[in-house]
Amino acid sequence: MNHRLVLYICGCILKFESAFLLLPSITGIFYHEFREALIYVAISLLCLILGYLCTLGGSKSNQLYPKEGFISVSLGWIVMSFFGALPFMFTGEIPSLTDALFETISGFTTTGASILTDVEALSHTSLFWRSFTHWIGGMGVFVFVMAILPMMGGSTMNLMKAESPGPSVGKLVPKVKDTAKILYIIYIFITVTQIIILLLCKLPLFDSMTLTFGTVGTGGFGIKNDSIAGYSSTVQNVITLFMILSGINYSAYFCLLCKQVKEAFSIEEVRVYLLIILSAVTIICFNTFSLYGTIEATAKHAFFQVGSIITTTGFATTDFNNWPLLSKTILVMLMFIGACAGSTGGGIKVSRITILFKTIKKELHILMHPRLVKKIKVDGHAVPHEVIRSTNVFIAVYFIIFFISLLLISVDNLDFTSSFTAVAATLNNIGPGLDSVGPTSNFSCFSMFSKYVLMFNMLAGRLEIFPMLILFHPACWKKY
Amino acid sequence: MNHRLVLYICGCILKFESAFLLLPSITGIFYHEFREALIYVAISLLCLILGYLCTLGGSKSNQLYPKEGFISVSLGWIVMSFFGALPFMFTGEIPSLTDALFETISGFTTTGASILTDVEALSHTSLFWRSFTHWIGGMGVFVFVMAILPMMGGSTMNLMKAESPGPSVGKLVPKVKDTAKILYIIYIFITVTQIIILLLCKLPLFDSMTLTFGTVGTGGFGIKNDSIAGYSSTVQNVITLFMILSGINYSAYFCLLCKQVKEAFSIEEVRVYLLIILSAVTIICFNTFSLYGTIEATAKHAFFQVGSIITTTGFATTDFNNWPLLSKTILVMLMFIGACAGSTGGGIKVSRITILFKTIKKELHILMHPRLVKKIKVDGHAVPHEVIRSTNVFIAVYFIIFFISLLLISVDNLDFTSSFTAVAATLNNIGPGLDSVGPTSNFSCFSMFSKYVLMFNMLAGRLEIFPMLILFHPACWKKY
Repeated sequence: MNHRLVLYICGCILKFESAFLLLPSITGIFYHEFREALIYVAISLLCLILGYLCTLGGSKSNQLYPKEGFISVSLGWIVMSFFGALPFMFTGEIPSLTDALFETISGFTTTGASILTDVEALSHTSLFWRSFTHWIGGMGVFVFVMAILPMMGGSTMNLMKAESPGPSVGKLVPKVKDTAKILYIIYIFITVTQIIILLLCKLPLFDSMTLTFGTVGTGGFGIKNDSIAGYSSTVQNVITLFMILSGINYSAYFCLLCKQVKEAFSIEEVRVYLLIILSAVTIICFNTFSLYGTIEATAKHAFFQVGSIITTTGFATTDFNNWPLLSKTILVMLMFIGACAGSTGGGIKVSRITILFKTIKKELHILMHPRLVKKIKVDGHAVPHEVIRSTNVFIAVYFIIFFISLLLISVDNLDFTSSFTAVAATLNNIGPGLDSVGPTSNFSCFSMFSKYVLMFNMLAGRLEIFPMLILFHPACWKKY
Repeated sequence: MNHRLVLYICGCILKFESAFLLLPSITGIFYHEFREALIYVAISLLCLILGYLCTLGGSKSNQLYPKEGFISVSLGWIVMSFFGALPFMFTGEIPSLTDALFETISGFTTTGASILTDVEALSHTSLFWRSFTHWIGGMGVFVFVMAILPMMGGSTMNLMKAESPGPSVGKLVPKVKDTAKILYIIYIFITVTQIIILLLCKLPLFDSMTLTFGTVGTGGFGIKNDSIAGYSSTVQNVITLFMILSGINYSAYFCLLCKQVKEAFSIEEVRVYLLIILSAVTIICFNTFSLYGTIEATAKHAFFQVGSIITTTGFATTDFNNWPLLSKTILVMLMFIGACAGSTGGGIKVSRITILFKTIKKELHILMHPRLVKKIKVDGHAVPHEVIRSTNVFIAVYFIIFFISLLLISVDNLDFTSSFTAVAATLNNIGPGLDSVGPTSNFSCFSMFSKYVLMFNMLAGRLEIFPMLILFHPACWKKY
């Protein structure tokens, strides 16, 4: 492996993190939390120096092979999480390294699972950083780096492949750099729009910004102990809308940007995604109507919760632990389905589920008419054989990782439902699960060992498994 | 579709069932249960007449296409289950049709999930029939028919394909008819051996026979309310041994039959299967040692339960509901793994899991070295592309069926663990799950609707999903 190139890329990431860490410092100064602000500045400096040292030797070779792409992305995320966790430790707000790391990985991977019992005890500085990690991780830090730096010639596609969610990476425009730029422009536009709307709802700027970071990054860290339950219905509905919008494939927004309105609405994945949301909301409304009494309240909670879970955000306005089993099972299923590919959400992704159902239909056809040749089509185009194969393998690996994780954390001897949904909530980057890890609880009940397993799950979920899995492959560490 | 051919095949099945129903009648006469014996004879006659009527018109065409093969097998199993349920209803022992059907399907599919709270209240006649259904379903009634009848020329392979478990059907010898014969000879040999050994353990003939049917068919219906817990340690150990033997790929026994001892022990699937059993037993022993105190008792229970679950038998010597979560999660994982392909056990099958892991390893290789071509090998031979593809699709479909079933039965509003393991225990043909469907409980808590969903799961699990799924495909009912 080309170690120097990987080191160089990690150095770039550290430099960017150094810049990101200045934002909470500014927040700290604004709220007169000078001690915290100073700690963030100090760690920002540390990142800058280390980043400088790592990039000092240059990248030696410009050629970025797929292997280096994967390893750079997974190591980059681990390094970024480690340094992102330091402020929590040094401010003393999360003294344990494991817990601080858990919280930061949960932030960057837009999971939103927390080990904190009292979120409101955090300083504004740390609350801002905690939510801001969602925003950085949502679209992806490598995508950000690519949008700005003129890196490694033409082979940055391998970095994008490793970080972007979905069965195939859709380049919006021929150049990777331009694609990355467009993605971030759309991302920033949605972010700013939501902040403005929340400000218009008379929410303070701090709340507007942190909630927006959690929404558009589909993260789910709130700044109150009751998540979103304490905010007004209007604010809740705005968040519902933006959660659902953030789960849509960004290529739909690109179509809108190019004034191709018809194309935007004809993307099959987006239509399936909206159909799933509507069906889930309808069933849950019928199932939970008796709990809320009015159609309005029932629909509001159903839409919020379905939007929050399918986009893998993880905000809560109500304790869905008390819902009937049917509604809870629907939420668990939505956890696995996840949002659209090419969005900021996690999970298996709607496009993979769509391809899967089409593959099954095709397989049934083959069984009945062995000589019939049929192509799987999405959006009118035949899906390449490679994509179908990797989709099937992805889903299989996904469940293997799922069951191995479940086995490992069951050493803690919690109940089956809590353990099962804890793995589902981390691997799919959601946040809350059911029972002991439900929306009113947190992940502090797990042992240190289980926390590391769940951290791996969060990273594996965000990077779509293979970049993390490759780290365990012996051939990955061989020099050539 | 060639309706007459399907009708003809169902007729053949009914004729065989008519013969099978005479065995419990003989048991009834022996135990002076004349009323029950008469009912079984009457239903046997009914099957004979209907079978005769169905086969009256002949099969019209000898050509059995894959489509007809699948539909014949799934409809054949449904017809067989319906008539097999009638005795339970008419003797008044299970008055409800749904419950009687559930019990019979559970029997034929070798699941062993029961809706009865008091098994010991059944007559000897019905207890015999109940256990005997396991034996019929274990190796498969179509395999039996093929071994005896000279049917439809050379295209019976399509029937065998639909009924036999595993990713690819291993013809032991070139002719399907001979393969079927050899399979039944081995099956009968194992059955008789176990009956003799149990008789030597001073068990009554009735107990020896019924327990053997439940063991070699990997069914799990007991004749006592406490399953196997009341029998002596020796009997329990004999059952453990024969359960594990029954989960082995029958081609290993064929190798032994041909005196190819080395080949028998070098089958990769068998070695992986035994390795999984040993690993699971070791971990469970460490985990449950405090419950039983002695190494001997712990190992006995661990071996029994692991053997019972991985072979998807479902007998119990202890209430594993009280085990720590780690051991329970291992059992749940074993439920999914299942026994070897080409055995009488259910589940996903060890060979599929093996292929899956090799596919993942290959996929990682491709990601790192896109130009490297690597073949997946099992037992030294390259696995055909088609087998790999259908394995991946099988596992994906499997989980989709799993989650849809879970959603459907969650309408009953039981807890998540019970619902989850109820689906796992039926789709994998095991029997008991955890909590409300644990080894000391039964499936009577489910609504009629859920019972039908679980019945579908049992049939889908036994016939490996596609034959049952094809019934829902509109093209399946078109005449051509």
